[in-house]
Amino acid sequence: MYPEYFSVRMRAAEGKAHELGGKHISGGERLGNRLQLEVIATELLAKASNHSRGSADFIQLVVEKVPGEELQFIPPLDVSAIEVATVQEGHDKAKDQLAAAGVSERAIEHAFLILNHERNLRGAAIVNCETGERLDERGQKGVRVSRMDWTDCGHVADSVRVREALALATKVAQSPYTVAELCWSDDPDYVTGYVSSQQLGYVRISPLKRMGCESGGRVFFVHNDVDIDSYIDFLERKPVFIQGGESE
Amino acid sequence: MYPEYFSVRMRAAEGKAHELGGKHISGGERLGNRLQLEVIATELLAKASNHSRGSADFIQLVVEKVPGEELQFIPPLDVSAIEVATVQEGHDKAKDQLAAAGVSERAIEHAFLILNHERNLRGAAIVNCETGERLDERGQKGVRVSRMDWTDCGHVADSVRVREALALATKVAQSPYTVAELCWSDDPDYVTGYVSSQQLGYVRISPLKRMGCESGGRVFFVHNDVDIDSYIDFLERKPVFIQGGESE
Ligand SMILES: Nc1ncnc2c1ncn2[C@@H]1O[C@H](COP(=O)(O)OP(=O)(O)OP(=O)(O)O)[C@@H](O)[C@H]1O
Ligand SMILES: Nc1ncnc2c1ncn2[C@@H]1O[C@H](COP(=O)(O)OP(=O)(O)OP(=O)(O)O)[C@@H](O)[C@H]1O
Ligand SMILES: [Mg+2]
Ligand SMILES: [Mg+2]
Ligand SMILES: [Mg+2]
Ligand SMILES: [Mg+2]
Repeated sequence: MYPEYFSVRMRAAEGKAHELGGKHISGGERLGNRLQLEVIATELLAKASNHSRGSADFIQLVVEKVPGEELQFIPPLDVSAIEVATVQEGHDKAKDQLAAAGVSERAIEHAFLILNHERNLRGAAIVNCETGERLDERGQKGVRVSRMDWTDCGHVADSVRVREALALATKVAQSPYTVAELCWSDDPDYVTGYVSSQQLGYVRISPLKRMGCESGGRVFFVHNDVDIDSYIDFLERKPVFIQGGESE
Repeated sequence: MYPEYFSVRMRAAEGKAHELGGKHISGGERLGNRLQLEVIATELLAKASNHSRGSADFIQLVVEKVPGEELQFIPPLDVSAIEVATVQEGHDKAKDQLAAAGVSERAIEHAFLILNHERNLRGAAIVNCETGERLDERGQKGVRVSRMDWTDCGHVADSVRVREALALATKVAQSPYTVAELCWSDDPDYVTGYVSSQQLGYVRISPLKRMGCESGGRVFFVHNDVDIDSYIDFLERKPVFIQGGESE
């Protein structure tokens, strides 16, 4: 018998629910056993209720049993950091990294357009690394990666924010279809972003936006030969635990 | 400034989500302030995870801010109890009570058909007290009454189960459209049911079904002149606190 695991997903919005036009405030994706459910739910509610993007009027939590036999355990990406003086320099460094990973100039420009847009997606956009075309058909919703978490939070000393992002980036980089990821937060008080891939590792770049700005998001650049449905299924449904190791 | 209150709704199913055909396991509707949110969520998750109907593979929690200025405080219905020797006698007593409240024989028969059905609704059916016609168009889903709770749980000594049912019945009876309510649980280990109305109070009748049976539900009998949309809006959205008092 495999142990029972549960995926817990949270999304929070201001004004009204996302699907009714509310403003996205917070989201979260966790994985744990039955005994951890209540702690995870409490942490996600606290995250939604104390957020720099605003005050949540709507919070949804969804708990789903996850097939234990599909669980995979993988180590986190290696972490490195680049500090720059200006947002422009940060963007240049990010573009260099993405180009080194094999992303075309067109695709890079399209991704920066998406992340600079004033109307954020609340999930990621999937972009062809050659043509720059957006491949998911999720509109404003985008694709939320779920079902990933750390086996033991104690092992990694970083902030919750970095832990969440490193778990996500590690899962995304795990797919052979992924060429690279670009991210900066939609939180107005957090200006660090990253570029990541299996080869590059997790490259923190700070700043990637100016303080106070609420634009942000994620772009996953994928190979031309991607099977988009199975890629999205992997992102949304494959359960992955990130196991220990040093992150810096 | 009115204080901020939040509605918390839970539904749990086995196999898969309700809308995908999963078996309804548990539901719950609560009301509390921001500080109570985490305790309420924890209690609802525990309720869903330890249920006599089965093991939940899917649990959804929805938290919504409730307009404080709409909050109403009402006392619970008076509680009385009828003990009988057989389920048949229990049904006869329930029918007597419903007839006394002004429900026609046809409407009563239809309600018993609905509650005895092997495929339960997961909410209530709304039935015309004269014609017996079902008025809501919610099918298997029915209508879930939400946004009601006790101001202070300590005041009423009953079991959680009775507290939940008494809060619901009190809110339902509060509408001038409601003629009476009939309920027995879908839980296989709980055979007590009730008939309630503003005039009758909350009349516990035991047994109303045999031990081990998973059929159950609720029927709200309404006046012929009901405005069904505003009635459902009241049931689903009007926030009501039940305030203290003795329940037995
Ligand atoms: N799990 C995810 N899968 C895909 N994209 C995500 C995911 N989490 C965040 N994003 C995208 O990255 C952006 C920035 O992430 P960030 O972590 O700041 O926001 P969030 O996860 O939506 O909520 P929170 O700030 O509470 O973590 C989001 O606006 C969203 O577009
Ligand atoms: N809030 C509600 N509004 C309308 N109908 C309800 C509500 N709660 C329960 N019912 C109906 O009454 C039936 C019996 O109620 P009961 O309290 O046993 O179940 P539940 O509320 O769905 O879950 P739980 O057993 O965890 O409380 C349910 O199957 C459902 O049809
Ligand atoms: Mg996040
Ligand atoms: Mg954010
Ligand atoms: Mg109940
Ligand atoms: Mg029940």
